Amino acid sequence: TINSQRLWNSLMELAKIGATAKGGNCRLALTTQDKEGRDLVVGWMKQAGLNVSVDQIGNIFGRRNGTDNSLPPIMTGSHIDTQPTGGKFDGCYGVLAGLEVIRTMNERNVTTNAPLELAIWTNEEGARFVPVMMGSGVFAGKFTLKTALDARDQQGISVREELHTIGYAGAAAVGDRKIGAYLEAHIEQGPILEHQEKTIGVVTGSLGVRWYDVEVIGMEMHAGPTPMEIRKDALAGATHIIQEVIRIANSFAPHGRGTVGSMQVHPGSRNVIPGKVHFTVDLRHLNEVTLAQMDSELRAVCSKVEQRQSLTVHLKDVQYFPPTQFDSVLVNQVRISTVAAGFSNMDMVTGAGHDAVYMASVTPTAMIFVPCKDGISHNEIEDAKPEHLAAGCQVLFNAMLLSSHN
Amino acid sequence: TINSQRLWNSLMELAKIGATAKGGNCRLALTTQDKEGRDLVVGWMKQAGLNVSVDQIGNIFGRRNGTDNSLPPIMTGSHIDTQPTGGKFDGCYGVLAGLEVIRTMNERNVTTNAPLELAIWTNEEGARFVPVMMGSGVFAGKFTLKTALDARDQQGISVREELHTIGYAGAAAVGDRKIGAYLEAHIEQGPILEHQEKTIGVVTGSLGVRWYDVEVIGMEMHAGPTPMEIRKDALAGATHIIQEVIRIANSFAPHGRGTVGSMQVHPGSRNVIPGKVHFTVDLRHLNEVTLAQMDSELRAVCSKVEQRQSLTVHLKDVQYFPPTQFDSVLVNQVRISTVAAGFSNMDMVTGAGHDAVYMASVTPTAMIFVPCKDGISHNEIEDAKPEHLAAGCQVLFNAMLLSSHN
Ligand SMILES: NC(=O)NCCC(=O)O
Ligand SMILES: NC(=O)NCCC(=O)O
Repeated sequence: TINSQRLWNSLMELAKIGATAKGGNCRLALTTQDKEGRDLVVGWMKQAGLNVSVDQIGNIFGRRNGTDNSLPPIMTGSHIDTQPTGGKFDGCYGVLAGLEVIRTMNERNVTTNAPLELAIWTNEEGARFVPVMMGSGVFAGKFTLKTALDARDQQGISVREELHTIGYAGAAAVGDRKIGAYLEAHIEQGPILEHQEKTIGVVTGSLGVRWYDVEVIGMEMHAGPTPMEIRKDALAGATHIIQEVIRIANSFAPHGRGTVGSMQVHPGSRNVIPGKVHFTVDLRHLNEVTLAQMDSELRAVCSKVEQRQSLTVHLKDVQYFPPTQFDSVLVNQVRISTVAAGFSNMDMVTGAGHDAVYMASVTPTAMIFVPCKDGISHNEIEDAKPEHLAAGCQVLFNAMLLSSHN
Repeated sequence: TINSQRLWNSLMELAKIGATAKGGNCRLALTTQDKEGRDLVVGWMKQAGLNVSVDQIGNIFGRRNGTDNSLPPIMTGSHIDTQPTGGKFDGCYGVLAGLEVIRTMNERNVTTNAPLELAIWTNEEGARFVPVMMGSGVFAGKFTLKTALDARDQQGISVREELHTIGYAGAAAVGDRKIGAYLEAHIEQGPILEHQEKTIGVVTGSLGVRWYDVEVIGMEMHAGPTPMEIRKDALAGATHIIQEVIRIANSFAPHGRGTVGSMQVHPGSRNVIPGKVHFTVDLRHLNEVTLAQMDSELRAVCSKVEQRQSLTVHLKDVQYFPPTQFDSVLVNQVRISTVAAGFSNMDMVTGAGHDAVYMASVTPTAMIFVPCKDGISHNEIEDAKPEHLAAGCQVLFNAMLLSSHN
């Protein structure tokens, strides 16, 4: 019953803002592109009759009244910020699928029992600012509003400043209110649904994630006259740690992940032995105990490099969220909604963190996954089929309807 | 007979331009800092009665006539550009030691038979522009003036533009004239003289150097949902190659060197598997055949990574200069000049490339090394003792006098 073409058109319209040469999007959190994207979607929300409010971390909520407005709202949503070389669907799909659900309800004159809310969360990607999943994290009380507002990007610009600059420093308190349930539709961002030829992933929970900043300090010296054996080459130490991050993740297959995504080498001259290297580490696992073991193996590797290679290694914890189990009752409602709509499906866990992961600690939460091409996400060539996107949106429609009448 | 205090004062005066917080210098080639440094030293050259000219690649020559000006000049010099986090002595010492020789000759009314020339070569460091040792390379016909003028820094600014901007795009043809001999004084930039407790290094030749740019291309994907085994992690491949660069150099001790100094990881986001990594490689060895073997081992490693890790690896040759033997007669004159002045000394090779390496192909060439603290160079904390600097300058004085009367 949802309108597949309207959903697709809205996705393509939003994708024009911060469009990149290779067909992707660069709409980093709280940039002018993000502002333009927000303005566009807020306009659509208002056209759909939603009552829009913005909270102090810039989260946007569009409310649609139900018959009993004393009930806590059934919420759906996601984010519209992207990676520096991101795709058109990651996040935007969840927001615009939610909007399409509302538009369809309006058209069909559907009135729910509980009110509905459509959320756009601030800085989900964590590409420009950490903590990642910032807006939902503050909303769920995972860290303070102050921590989030004080976060700075690599240029030293804070979230606080940028919220004011783009005009999304809202007045509403962040969180601290009852939500009836939270549902989020998203592209899978991995290869499993496509490989298993299923249309819908019923997400039962998520991997836990640990983020670190690592700094390796050696001694800048000349690349020519300095014999190999007296060097304190910070990059020699860093590359060893990076290889070990990958080895650790491999050793805890199939649910282990280890990634170094960002790295800076100083002073960065061809004929200077690097004196300082900074890089990030992202470790993930489905099992909390295993993730703790991966953490201690990483610490052991850093100590070994420090001792054996006469380097100083600083390992700083940046963020941690444990593996999450979604609410089994709500997950089952997603399963029922999928079967009712006649789509093939499978249970799965998400390897990506989502706003749903933080929301799960304050309200019953579940997610709906649809396949994406070749499992590729966080890439400009990210792609998804209109029929899959429509299927996920239909499941979201059904699940929201079910939840709002529970 | 040279004036140690005057030499030291000039070094400290020049070091004020582009001074860094940790006591070093950032005076990258052809920046406004480089211009200021050039202006200062050119002023001193003129005060010392030198006839100053600038060639089309920005090399500066200060000429002092001899009794027979039909003879080719005896030349000394070095460079005053620095690394981004460089020291006060690398290069500047060779230029100001040459100036001190001239100042002393003026004071003592010494007239040489052949004319003398003091050279300041453009972009010796290669930190901002490649080829490294640019000015002397064009002078010696190692690559064309066009190649050098077309070189661009990471911001895309060319040598041609910057020479005009700083007012050092001279009119004189580059090179193509007879030079009687070339002598260069320099800090060792390594630990050997200090360790052996010798004052003067009589440099007999230099390591050969190969520079490369490496690009590893994989596939940007999400750090969470993407299983380890399907990743095309460009950084996993790059770190493997970097570890091998170090292993290769270690396996050809004591004269093997392998350094990765500069590296960029794209797109550089914590939760994105790197899709592209760019880094530099610097390989050195005393023996030409061994250096060729190191080169083929590096190529083999790149192919292996390409095959085993489903990545694309582009290895681009950036610069090559073979190991150089300096002129045995001129080297012996340096040895004699050292013994005459009563300084302890030893023969050694240089691990760093110097303008002398290129000059060696067009004129008899030799170098004079003095110790530097802890062998540290290409570092803001680079340091040298006034008495060692004076000793090297005295040897240069003696050797120039000898050469100019041959
Ligand atoms: N969905 C998504 O890309 N989230 C970013 C957070 C993460 O790194 O998992
Ligand atoms: N002397 C010096 O630092 N030269 C730079 C060229 C090299 O890398 O060897």
